[in-house]
Amino acid sequence: MIQEEFERLMEEKKWGELREFLNSLEWTDLKDLFSSMKSSDLVPAFRLLHKDDALELFESLEVDRQAELINLMSDPETIKLVESLDPDDRARLFEELPAKVTKQLLRNLSPEARESVNLLLGYPEGSAGRIMTSRYLSAKANRTAGQILSSLYATPLRPDEMQVIFVIDSGRFYKGYVTLGSLIKAKPDITMGELAEEPDVFVSTFDPRTEAAKIVNEYDLPAIAVVDSEGRMVGSVTFDDVLDVVEEEATEDFQKLGSVGVIKTSVKGASSWLLYQKRVPWLLFLVLMSIISGAEMSYFEGTIQEVVALLFFLPLLIGSGGNAGSQSATLMVRSLATGDVTIKDWLKLLTKEITVSLAIGITLAFAVVAIGLAKGGAEVALVAAFSMVMVVLLGSLIGMSLPFLLTRLNLDPATSSTPLVTSVADIVGVLIYLSIATWYFGI
Amino acid sequence: MIQEEFERLMEEKKWGELREFLNSLEWTDLKDLFSSMKSSDLVPAFRLLHKDDALELFESLEVDRQAELINLMSDPETIKLVESLDPDDRARLFEELPAKVTKQLLRNLSPEARESVNLLLGYPEGSAGRIMTSRYLSAKANRTAGQILSSLYATPLRPDEMQVIFVIDSGRFYKGYVTLGSLIKAKPDITMGELAEEPDVFVSTFDPRTEAAKIVNEYDLPAIAVVDSEGRMVGSVTFDDVLDVVEEEATEDFQKLGSVGVIKTSVKGASSWLLYQKRVPWLLFLVLMSIISGAEMSYFEGTIQEVVALLFFLPLLIGSGGNAGSQSATLMVRSLATGDVTIKDWLKLLTKEITVSLAIGITLAFAVVAIGLAKGGAEVALVAAFSMVMVVLLGSLIGMSLPFLLTRLNLDPATSSTPLVTSVADIVGVLIYLSIATWYFGI
Repeated sequence: MIQEEFERLMEEKKWGELREFLNSLEWTDLKDLFSSMKSSDLVPAFRLLHKDDALELFESLEVDRQAELINLMSDPETIKLVESLDPDDRARLFEELPAKVTKQLLRNLSPEARESVNLLLGYPEGSAGRIMTSRYLSAKANRTAGQILSSLYATPLRPDEMQVIFVIDSGRFYKGYVTLGSLIKAKPDITMGELAEEPDVFVSTFDPRTEAAKIVNEYDLPAIAVVDSEGRMVGSVTFDDVLDVVEEEATEDFQKLGSVGVIKTSVKGASSWLLYQKRVPWLLFLVLMSIISGAEMSYFEGTIQEVVALLFFLPLLIGSGGNAGSQSATLMVRSLATGDVTIKDWLKLLTKEITVSLAIGITLAFAVVAIGLAKGGAEVALVAAFSMVMVVLLGSLIGMSLPFLLTRLNLDPATSSTPLVTSVADIVGVLIYLSIATWYFGI
Repeated sequence: MIQEEFERLMEEKKWGELREFLNSLEWTDLKDLFSSMKSSDLVPAFRLLHKDDALELFESLEVDRQAELINLMSDPETIKLVESLDPDDRARLFEELPAKVTKQLLRNLSPEARESVNLLLGYPEGSAGRIMTSRYLSAKANRTAGQILSSLYATPLRPDEMQVIFVIDSGRFYKGYVTLGSLIKAKPDITMGELAEEPDVFVSTFDPRTEAAKIVNEYDLPAIAVVDSEGRMVGSVTFDDVLDVVEEEATEDFQKLGSVGVIKTSVKGASSWLLYQKRVPWLLFLVLMSIISGAEMSYFEGTIQEVVALLFFLPLLIGSGGNAGSQSATLMVRSLATGDVTIKDWLKLLTKEITVSLAIGITLAFAVVAIGLAKGGAEVALVAAFSMVMVVLLGSLIGMSLPFLLTRLNLDPATSSTPLVTSVADIVGVLIYLSIATWYFGI
């Protein structure tokens, strides 16, 4: 009866109900069910268990069945099944795997398979868990440096995976690291626990991968430990993965800042259809934004018809507002990404931005006056020069503040793309210029 | 007489003449001069010698005088003197230092002092020579793995400087590397020469630092060798320096793409005056560019006065051209920087760009028609829709090609900033839209 109910829910892919059902079973029934179920059901059922139950069950299984479960987890069919789940469902349904199972699962996987199997572990995209490897050296804290050094001769790991030895206790709790260099320089009878440095330097599986990059960068370590939510070591992130992360994150920020959707593949290899999809939504959105500028132009068409010389300064003015805003947005987006600036700095930077953009605005206003005199149209040039100061000031303040606002709303500051800032600055620029002109010429 | 002439030239800071003078002296006179000259003149005079003479002279000096010379080279006064030289002069006057002198000079310098002393060596800004350290392990090719391993116990280097052992011959020529891991796993009687891997993986002091980053990234090595123009090892670049390079280079590209001059310091800490200086030149340049758009507007003012409804679509059209161009420029600048795309790919990418931007242009044209119908102005909307296709196509092609053109001219592709592309697209956009309108309405 239990088995039939299980198979029915499995068949109908009712994952939520299945999860409740499995976790309501008596311990003996659960064990029987897992011993008798089809191989293909093993992984999904196992992943729906509570973490503690999963560990206990895993340890109670026959060694053969354990190996089968682990092998099935890296099976392409299983991965496809898990990938077909909605990412939110996946995060909601799957708890962490027990550290012991994770370690066994990740062992001996190729780097290419790693990313997809880490998906199975339920770590969200962009998390440290997604980029960790289980090919690292660990040593119990009570072993001596001499023992470990002499055992390294026979490790199956590659030399580039041996740069750091992570120290753990008998419960796999992380206790610090020992670099290969300090192991060699250490007295042979000192214990790994005594030698271990910085037990607080690690990341959690669910931390963003940028956090791992920050720590590697700060401590100049070739590899750092990744622990689960209980502090048990489950993997390691190496400097070469961090180099990739830093490059990829910068590329994503570039694409967002250019108002392109994030393109995960090579731009060279991307299909025309993919590029179209990544580019057109933002452009459509910006077209809709431009309707506001267009409406302003229509509203002031009387002014323009009367003083048609205003048209000459129009591209120059709205361009400058957008350009000054783009500069500010770019500086802030990048500074927020590298950690040079944090959200707390907004007010201090705002004061500086006002000073700088006023100075810039006044400089450009002089250029406008000079152009106006050369062209012969002193009155219009005066209106344009005064507008210039306002437009540059407001454009800069918008460009500078938008990334902070987005950060505050827990959105990516890089979304304040230069085209977006330019569009907003256009709206403001047209309004200011034509309002001032209408007032000045008394239309 | 020789000494007097030397002191006169030194006094008058005639570096070029001094260089000729020193290199014209007989060997014995040169040796006498160096034995008798003031300490403060020692470094400048030494740096003006030809490389081969410098090595011979250095080796002929008393050990005390050698040490004095080396110490003087990292003296803040000496560095200030060298910094006061024009960078071009510095590069022209200074040859490479002999590898032996470089090695001694860089030994024991703090990382902070390294950058300024590498300046003294005459390596240009942004070169691998500027970021190298001399704190690395090297081993002669004929030593055995066992000998090296047992000697490491006593190295004065820090553990993080021991990750790679560089193998050299008796002339300090680079012969490959051995990671600490492979040294431990190696048979004790194998020679370092036999164990050494990839003798071709290194950078030259004058290579750009991005080249060092590329190699570290490609080979996943914690450190790589830096050799002088003869192939003699003079330093090492480590992964943590490479991480900094990757971040700094991305930041510079961001700033250029946002048409801000490169700001070497923290944006948070930058003075208002510095920010003004970095921002205003580009904005002034772009204002001058916008005069062209302004002149076009003036030229077509008759058309606008006649069909004033054209104004409504103006921001929308020129905005879209600039936005599409910004997208393309951003994609290309970043792809060129990461090496995803090279200059050879231009033609292939151009074809794809035409396809994609035509598709985008037609999509946006439909949006324009829809807006036109909603607003009630079918004829103007038709003109705007047709212009939209052209404007998006040309904007994209400009944005996509400008980075390649700059690369071709040996300029930085990131100079094709989004504000620049937007300004150029504005010029093209105004021209197309108002020309088509003038023709269509028969004005």
